[in-house]
Amino acid sequence: MSHVMAEFLGTMILIILGGGVCANCTLAKSKGQNGGWLLITAGWAFAVGLPAYIFGGISGAHFNPAVTIGLAIAGKFPVGEIGGYIVAQMLGAIVGAAIVWLAYLPHWAETEDKAGKLGVFATAPAIRNLPANVLTEAIATFVLVFVILGMGTVKAADGIGTIIVTALIWGLGASLGGPTGYAMNPARDLGPRIAHAILPIAGKGDSDWSYSWVPVVGPIIGGIVAAILFKMVF
Amino acid sequence: MSHVMAEFLGTMILIILGGGVCANCTLAKSKGQNGGWLLITAGWAFAVGLPAYIFGGISGAHFNPAVTIGLAIAGKFPVGEIGGYIVAQMLGAIVGAAIVWLAYLPHWAETEDKAGKLGVFATAPAIRNLPANVLTEAIATFVLVFVILGMGTVKAADGIGTIIVTALIWGLGASLGGPTGYAMNPARDLGPRIAHAILPIAGKGDSDWSYSWVPVVGPIIGGIVAAILFKMVF
Amino acid sequence: MSHVMAEFLGTMILIILGGGVCANCTLAKSKGQNGGWLLITAGWAFAVGLPAYIFGGISGAHFNPAVTIGLAIAGKFPVGEIGGYIVAQMLGAIVGAAIVWLAYLPHWAETEDKAGKLGVFATAPAIRNLPANVLTEAIATFVLVFVILGMGTVKAADGIGTIIVTALIWGLGASLGGPTGYAMNPARDLGPRIAHAILPIAGKGDSDWSYSWVPVVGPIIGGIVAAILFKMVF
Amino acid sequence: MSHVMAEFLGTMILIILGGGVCANCTLAKSKGQNGGWLLITAGWAFAVGLPAYIFGGISGAHFNPAVTIGLAIAGKFPVGEIGGYIVAQMLGAIVGAAIVWLAYLPHWAETEDKAGKLGVFATAPAIRNLPANVLTEAIATFVLVFVILGMGTVKAADGIGTIIVTALIWGLGASLGGPTGYAMNPARDLGPRIAHAILPIAGKGDSDWSYSWVPVVGPIIGGIVAAILFKMVF
Repeated sequence: MSHVMAEFLGTMILIILGGGVCANCTLAKSKGQNGGWLLITAGWAFAVGLPAYIFGGISGAHFNPAVTIGLAIAGKFPVGEIGGYIVAQMLGAIVGAAIVWLAYLPHWAETEDKAGKLGVFATAPAIRNLPANVLTEAIATFVLVFVILGMGTVKAADGIGTIIVTALIWGLGASLGGPTGYAMNPARDLGPRIAHAILPIAGKGDSDWSYSWVPVVGPIIGGIVAAILFKMVF
Repeated sequence: MSHVMAEFLGTMILIILGGGVCANCTLAKSKGQNGGWLLITAGWAFAVGLPAYIFGGISGAHFNPAVTIGLAIAGKFPVGEIGGYIVAQMLGAIVGAAIVWLAYLPHWAETEDKAGKLGVFATAPAIRNLPANVLTEAIATFVLVFVILGMGTVKAADGIGTIIVTALIWGLGASLGGPTGYAMNPARDLGPRIAHAILPIAGKGDSDWSYSWVPVVGPIIGGIVAAILFKMVF
Repeated sequence: MSHVMAEFLGTMILIILGGGVCANCTLAKSKGQNGGWLLITAGWAFAVGLPAYIFGGISGAHFNPAVTIGLAIAGKFPVGEIGGYIVAQMLGAIVGAAIVWLAYLPHWAETEDKAGKLGVFATAPAIRNLPANVLTEAIATFVLVFVILGMGTVKAADGIGTIIVTALIWGLGASLGGPTGYAMNPARDLGPRIAHAILPIAGKGDSDWSYSWVPVVGPIIGGIVAAILFKMVF
Repeated sequence: MSHVMAEFLGTMILIILGGGVCANCTLAKSKGQNGGWLLITAGWAFAVGLPAYIFGGISGAHFNPAVTIGLAIAGKFPVGEIGGYIVAQMLGAIVGAAIVWLAYLPHWAETEDKAGKLGVFATAPAIRNLPANVLTEAIATFVLVFVILGMGTVKAADGIGTIIVTALIWGLGASLGGPTGYAMNPARDLGPRIAHAILPIAGKGDSDWSYSWVPVVGPIIGGIVAAILFKMVF
């Protein structure tokens, strides 16, 4: 399997499971409605960890342009492959979001809350303050990318790394997800937002494009800072 | 131990623990009543992961006709063993469901909710829309079987695979369990439904046979699609 | 370190953490009050898994007379050591319960609920029906001991077994803990019950001795049945 | 990387994630507000486990003066390095707390509860009874350090130890965190308390200096007792 196919399929599964847990907790009549932040963060942790287990040995399992760029800056990834990875991640995220829409098909019309429906696809801040929101996304992604880079220096039995990545995503959501919903990943936010705009979702509202640059710019800044710090200290 | 004995015992333990967590969360006066979706999904994750650990090396720990059929289509399982596996899985599920009934014996008469009592045994959709319900079960089982097939390509330390399977079931319940209760397994749903029909459960209602084909057909479709995609891309 | 010292210390830690999570969820003003069944089951899972990790290589980390007896019947443990193990387990449980009392010292006087205070030490049934309660404890302990015996047949990387044991206790609590509070262990219930009777706990009620034989007899029956089935099928 | 740099960075990440989960559960409008004790304890578990994974091989990943002192008493750590470790831990905790403040920047002004804001930085007892509070912190830290010392005697596949440490912190929070909020670590409490005093946090109250010695003295006592017991029995 090619690297980009692995990134496409992995990001697709990531969004099927990640968007899915948001749908489960948000959409009317879903069995997990109001399941709480711990359920959401557990769901996203498995959403990242499961495809990372399968595709890690093929593409490195980035599924995230901020990780791809951070690894390239740290000298751990060839610059020439950045473009292909990001395209595959974006397309995988869009297809994954469409599959979430299908999996919850009867629930969209039953749900009044337009912002909640968008929240299945894209993040929104708890308090809209764009510079602060960028800062939060940058800090969370800094920890994400710094820990991923640090993991590369550790000797562990085969398969343990995936468990640590799962814990990393769970922990970041638990700890730093409160202000902005922890996108930490331009593809995870922008891809499904595009899907939200395109798909015929029953009773949908607008796609909040004015916020859409925040979960792109913040994570890229955080990933770059993490890569620079990593090169300085390791 | 024979393969079919392992499938029988493994599916029995799976349903003791899986049906058990539903009983705990649903039945009146149980200490875990209204324990929430995270408790239910954790319970099912361990319900699958624990027998998978013990019986994986003997039978492959399918416990699920959709997995057995998917693996056979992917060329990872001999077609001639399909029948024996499915019979063992069905019988194990029926016996497991009877043991759940015994473990919660005084609670059935205390529980008014007939649908809740059936829910300990079999799944029911949040919104009854049979084509959509088939689609949801097919999507969830597609992810289940695709990840299981993908796991077979990964090198990991002995025992790690079971932890990933546990995470997989937890994640699928968290993310895709909202619309239909994530049967993803014909034996898991039909076996206990038969037990519900047969057992002298205090104050039980009907066994909702009109829905019973959905968690059989949906998962088999999903498993077949996953196997075909797996053969195309890996 | 001797086997019995390991059983003493391990059971002590088990009860410090297991009784502790009950205290945290039950006692007035505790930060985890009403933390829910998932918190309780997580707490007990770690309570067993952590000392199992440290002492498994020394004593086998039984911490439980039903496990000791079951292993002896299955031919995996010398009969002559049973007595010493059970004495160590009982003493460890009593000392552990006294440490829980000290850790929550100011909270006992603040708590009105006498049954809740006893519940930090010993189990009580949700519906008092002693034959049914024995059956529930026997079924839960059957699964416990059968899975532990089955784990002995599996090849896994060093340390994985502890993670599976943790999952086993978490799963049993989630799934089969609803009717009786899943003692599954005569020492875990009787030892702290003795501590409850002895210690000068502020505003305590009686120690419910009429129920005290159930979490002794039920688990021993379950452990014996598991050992017999294990010898038949493996 | 030097040992002290690893202790600085590891403690910084520990407090970013540990303080972060408190902020998420406490601050007004945060998406995880009132997320419950299980979310808080999960967050702290990952907060310790993730940097332990990365820095364990460099500095031993103490991140905690009580661990450093306990290991030194047990003969597992050179006495001459204690001072440098504790300074690095304190500085890392202060910087980590400042980053939490930044990550949740718009939420401080929205939050009325001054004690809740302090609780993002430092612990406070549920019932203020300083000798009892010292005892609780000493007991929790005794278990922490005794289990860590015991882990050093166990043979496990590379990386498993980190998973056990994560479970240890989760379990200690679940079981012994109720009375005092389980500081168990002088740097974790005093460092962020200093940050609370220094930083221009919107609408902050006092830093509760009268309690500040408890989470320093209690953990050091517990760590010393654990080291002495470890030397006696292992």
